[in-house]
Amino acid sequence: MELEKAIEIVRNRSSAKRFQHVLGVVDAAAMLADRFGCDREKAMLAAALHDIAKCETKERLHELMITAGLPQELLSYQVELWHAPVGAYITQAELSVIDPDILTAIRFHTTGRANMSLLEKVVFLADYIELGRTTPRVEECRQLAEANLDQAMIFAYQRTIEHLLQQQMAIHPDTILGYNDLVNTGVSE
Amino acid sequence: MELEKAIEIVRNRSSAKRFQHVLGVVDAAAMLADRFGCDREKAMLAAALHDIAKCETKERLHELMITAGLPQELLSYQVELWHAPVGAYITQAELSVIDPDILTAIRFHTTGRANMSLLEKVVFLADYIELGRTTPRVEECRQLAEANLDQAMIFAYQRTIEHLLQQQMAIHPDTILGYNDLVNTGVSE
Repeated sequence: MELEKAIEIVRNRSSAKRFQHVLGVVDAAAMLADRFGCDREKAMLAAALHDIAKCETKERLHELMITAGLPQELLSYQVELWHAPVGAYITQAELSVIDPDILTAIRFHTTGRANMSLLEKVVFLADYIELGRTTPRVEECRQLAEANLDQAMIFAYQRTIEHLLQQQMAIHPDTILGYNDLVNTGVSE
Repeated sequence: MELEKAIEIVRNRSSAKRFQHVLGVVDAAAMLADRFGCDREKAMLAAALHDIAKCETKERLHELMITAGLPQELLSYQVELWHAPVGAYITQAELSVIDPDILTAIRFHTTGRANMSLLEKVVFLADYIELGRTTPRVEECRQLAEANLDQAMIFAYQRTIEHLLQQQMAIHPDTILGYNDLVNTGVSE
């Protein structure tokens, strides 16, 4: 699928604010892809599509989680996690994108997971640091991402988990396993 | 097993500092048991034994993790987590305590887990708030524990996870599942 076509489809499914964020993620993904040797075209396409399901209603997301056979355990977590697997599903079912790298980059862009591919990390991090973000300390993460993708990922995981703790919200195990995967080296040595 | 005998055994296996901590946990566990309707004798015995393996060397803990068939996945986490299952093993194998309530209270006193029993919560929290502890904000946790066991547990989980994040240390999934279990109610409603 061509990037321009994907962007046009996403524009038609998104609020203006959401669409601005998507364009920011596409830019950030291109920059990170160039910097860390990831496929630039794939990174931009995955970034363009990562939030394709974000503006669906909770009821529609719930329905698709069920009818598409997506992981039901996610339904016991907050609705903010559902658009990622639903987005991967829509990308495959409606846009006929079948590249598994792109589909998993969309699917895991919110929770993260252990053993992420380079493309998955690029999309996850682009979503966190795109220039429209004003999250506390995001500038520190952008600086880490100048040189070290994994250190920037760890920082993004740390801030995400801290935020969930402060809000007394549940933390998906994939987020912890993703964090552990990057900090784990040698802890039991 | 009688409490006095358990305390004597633990005294002989512990440093003076560790033994003072254990006595603090026994006191705190008795107080929490009375407050929240838990069996006082069981709570004090589990508290007395919770750190029975804490002063073993890393090599001995590792050996027992292997030979006793304890969960091998723990070996990829920090050594600080190993003494809990090893302690439950020693309590059963050497002290012939077979009460599963007491054994699981020892086993999960460091990580926590989902669906903790009242006794497990009492020992976990007593370990966190005993009067010798000077952890930041521990006084807030003591105050929460005056009235609401689960709110105090959530607070202890939050501070524990934050500390691990700050140290860039791995977080065992049972800790997250224990936290999620207590904050989860209604998140997807």
